Amino acid sequence: MNSVRNAAGTDANQAPADLRQVGSHPDHWYPLAWSQEVKRGRAFASSFAGEPIVIVRTEAGDLFALEDRCAHRQVPLSKGVVKDCHLHCCYHGWSYDSSGRCVDVPYLGKDKLPNGVRAYPCCELDGVVLVWPGRLLAKPPPTTLGAAADRAYKTRRFGQFVNCHYTFMHENLMDMNHQFLHRQTTGKVSPRYLGQRSGKGWMELDYSFRRPGERAPLGESMIVGSLRAPSAAPRDLMTIRTDYPHQSLRLWTSGEHPVLHVWLGYTPVDVQQRKNRTFIMLSVRRPKIPGLLELAWPFLAKFTDRVFDEDRAIVEMEQAAYDVQGGDWNQEVFPAIRDLRELLALHGVHNHT
Amino acid sequence: MNSVRNAAGTDANQAPADLRQVGSHPDHWYPLAWSQEVKRGRAFASSFAGEPIVIVRTEAGDLFALEDRCAHRQVPLSKGVVKDCHLHCCYHGWSYDSSGRCVDVPYLGKDKLPNGVRAYPCCELDGVVLVWPGRLLAKPPPTTLGAAADRAYKTRRFGQFVNCHYTFMHENLMDMNHQFLHRQTTGKVSPRYLGQRSGKGWMELDYSFRRPGERAPLGESMIVGSLRAPSAAPRDLMTIRTDYPHQSLRLWTSGEHPVLHVWLGYTPVDVQQRKNRTFIMLSVRRPKIPGLLELAWPFLAKFTDRVFDEDRAIVEMEQAAYDVQGGDWNQEVFPAIRDLRELLALHGVHNHT
Amino acid sequence: MNSVRNAAGTDANQAPADLRQVGSHPDHWYPLAWSQEVKRGRAFASSFAGEPIVIVRTEAGDLFALEDRCAHRQVPLSKGVVKDCHLHCCYHGWSYDSSGRCVDVPYLGKDKLPNGVRAYPCCELDGVVLVWPGRLLAKPPPTTLGAAADRAYKTRRFGQFVNCHYTFMHENLMDMNHQFLHRQTTGKVSPRYLGQRSGKGWMELDYSFRRPGERAPLGESMIVGSLRAPSAAPRDLMTIRTDYPHQSLRLWTSGEHPVLHVWLGYTPVDVQQRKNRTFIMLSVRRPKIPGLLELAWPFLAKFTDRVFDEDRAIVEMEQAAYDVQGGDWNQEVFPAIRDLRELLALHGVHNHT
Repeated sequence: MNSVRNAAGTDANQAPADLRQVGSHPDHWYPLAWSQEVKRGRAFASSFAGEPIVIVRTEAGDLFALEDRCAHRQVPLSKGVVKDCHLHCCYHGWSYDSSGRCVDVPYLGKDKLPNGVRAYPCCELDGVVLVWPGRLLAKPPPTTLGAAADRAYKTRRFGQFVNCHYTFMHENLMDMNHQFLHRQTTGKVSPRYLGQRSGKGWMELDYSFRRPGERAPLGESMIVGSLRAPSAAPRDLMTIRTDYPHQSLRLWTSGEHPVLHVWLGYTPVDVQQRKNRTFIMLSVRRPKIPGLLELAWPFLAKFTDRVFDEDRAIVEMEQAAYDVQGGDWNQEVFPAIRDLRELLALHGVHNHT
Repeated sequence: MNSVRNAAGTDANQAPADLRQVGSHPDHWYPLAWSQEVKRGRAFASSFAGEPIVIVRTEAGDLFALEDRCAHRQVPLSKGVVKDCHLHCCYHGWSYDSSGRCVDVPYLGKDKLPNGVRAYPCCELDGVVLVWPGRLLAKPPPTTLGAAADRAYKTRRFGQFVNCHYTFMHENLMDMNHQFLHRQTTGKVSPRYLGQRSGKGWMELDYSFRRPGERAPLGESMIVGSLRAPSAAPRDLMTIRTDYPHQSLRLWTSGEHPVLHVWLGYTPVDVQQRKNRTFIMLSVRRPKIPGLLELAWPFLAKFTDRVFDEDRAIVEMEQAAYDVQGGDWNQEVFPAIRDLRELLALHGVHNHT
Repeated sequence: MNSVRNAAGTDANQAPADLRQVGSHPDHWYPLAWSQEVKRGRAFASSFAGEPIVIVRTEAGDLFALEDRCAHRQVPLSKGVVKDCHLHCCYHGWSYDSSGRCVDVPYLGKDKLPNGVRAYPCCELDGVVLVWPGRLLAKPPPTTLGAAADRAYKTRRFGQFVNCHYTFMHENLMDMNHQFLHRQTTGKVSPRYLGQRSGKGWMELDYSFRRPGERAPLGESMIVGSLRAPSAAPRDLMTIRTDYPHQSLRLWTSGEHPVLHVWLGYTPVDVQQRKNRTFIMLSVRRPKIPGLLELAWPFLAKFTDRVFDEDRAIVEMEQAAYDVQGGDWNQEVFPAIRDLRELLALHGVHNHT
């Protein structure tokens, strides 16, 4: 009798593969740059899981993405020169068009042009440049990321390079019991797990919160508290969702619209995928009093930076522990996180290096 | 005929193992922190040979030592919170008692508590926290370290992380012919080897010194010279001892009490044991004139720092040469050092990684 | 039928070995230091392909080169003390003469002296210390390097450590189509390949240049332009030569003497030879107006530094790409560079590590 291998590449009868060795699946749209990082007439260096990718914006405003190494001597094309609709390598001046075809070698006849480089599907959305690094035909890109396109919200774009496998990011956010980590930033909050839903490629968890006899710190009030009608019962509902490979967080205090809607993308940077670039779009619903949110914005930025820094520090410690231990020793007691790990393993790439 | 393997794990008929691959044996008491580094109500991160160890001092003053990683997600417990007699992990708030037992997971029933972490025997002595990292039942700790507890002496505690295998430290100190290294600090001194004694787990060497027609530098006079009766014949006796795994140095100028008594502990830090933390207790016998030693103390501190820095630089060069050469190419001509190497090989751990 | 292996160690029927794994052949004279780096009565640390080499200049001015590690405990002899014609190790004072023989161990009888260290043939020429790191009998050193000894030229000595395999240096210089790299420094220049010559261990290429309707930048005029008779037709001839393992570049504007004569040596530093120290002797023919070249010199130094920095940056990117890709993916379209690669492979050392 043959054992059957599932999509995750693991034998159904065997222990699952080490999740930290599972690559983020390339057949999705990934954020590779903020729109403002890619200036007109310039090339921007990025990467997906060790594949160097150059994003080009022509003077006319057109965007394209190519393998970021010259077919000649492998140096980064992102060091080159954008002219009209071509990218010229900085070294010997080989030129490429938006499809990656080599269209000129200055010292060679036009009839002898060498092979070019790979091109990637590329689009721009809500202030983010998305690239499809996979080999399959690109699906249509999403129409929006979180609430960034909704004028009822004000959106902050931030994030950093984080030295950990993207799966630590997913598990960190999904398990709201990690509020203890933010005890000095958000104050003492008791999350209560309410339940979960899931489908193909996604799952989401609901939590409510109780703040035992203590006032919320100013930063959090700015996002949540001040928007809550004083008469309403203090019931916060938070839904955290992994929609492979991205995540979102929505928080409702009352009414049908979330007061907070966060979209998070984690793009693996290096071949081992021990580093990711995190792109966060944090959208806060505008309160009725005009200008209030703008006033609070600098403070809110500082507050969200602090929370993110705490998360970044802890997931980097998780990665460091993994590296020292040479494997995943985690003892996960929360069933929803075990489900999340299964979802990530199922949709990822095994033996990706 | 079978060949017999000795305690060092080497075949009696074969060349001895590479000493720099021999681990420091964990079944001993090792210094892991200075007492003052472990504040009340705080946790202190240390390690032995790659095993992370957190030392906790409760507000009440009790001391305990645990494996420094949470059983849940492996992050350092030393980043956590000490409350009453428990250590709470900073991430999801799992709590441990002094035996390493997990006593609380805030979001889990008390009947479902997971496995805890390892605890280590731990004690405090003469301003040092000692830990027993081994698996055997801990022996009673030593009653004192050098002359640190003797009120006839004033003791300086210092040391640093040194990027070398602990065996280079032992060989450095034991071979007093390395005085040439300190020629600019201690002046030109000619050591003379007088003989050696040894027993189970220890050996010691005697040296006398001659300073050819030159005055001792001020720093050394402060320690030694000023205490010597002018009428006495200039005979210095130095005894250097390895009492596995620690070392000591005693210097007599006249009389039965050493004028200088130094205790040295070398605690391997990383798995490869290419880094050690050196703990030095340097005890100087108080001269008859009160206050003289206190006056000289800042100068003496600077002098001993300089000597230690010279030693640190050279043993780190030895380690660097070893790493480049990929093995021990030493050509040792001093029989006592060859004996020391045998002692260290015999009592260490082979295949420790 | 047996296949024949050529000097390069490759099968004539097979693809050639990876050129970046071919070591620079040690049986040649290599620059290891500038003369002024080796002071009287001092020792200077250098290396060839991972072999540490100490260059000693005695107070009397004599020069010798030894293996830079003490036979005793492997620490660098270059940290030691030069006295009379001996080098004393800084650690236990072992002493070596210019042949590498150990002539004294202060605490050992003269009849028991241990083995010494290796000595290297060493000479000084035109302000450079040359060493013969190979095992074969050293050939007579060259009589001069470029035009450095010719009083009709003024010579600038410069260079740096460059983090790449020496072969990238050869290919960079030989392929003048890389002028595009220097477009902001030297302006837009169109090189035209004229032809090549070659012999045993050497090859050279000729180029002419055209500057399309643009004035040469000031820096280049200082070297070339100002020396050209205004009446002469603007014909520049450049010859670039690899004379294994070194290179040279000569530029003629008119007349029989080159206006520019550059000699370049690339000494591999580490075992993997992914780092080289580049020694450049840039000789500019003195113009008829006395003092003009001296006036221009600081400007010329800055200009040549900038050009060299651009080259250094790009070859380091080539090495970085090689390291990431784990092999040589280059797609070389210029036949002369393919010939150069063959020459370098043929004269190098295979399996050098």
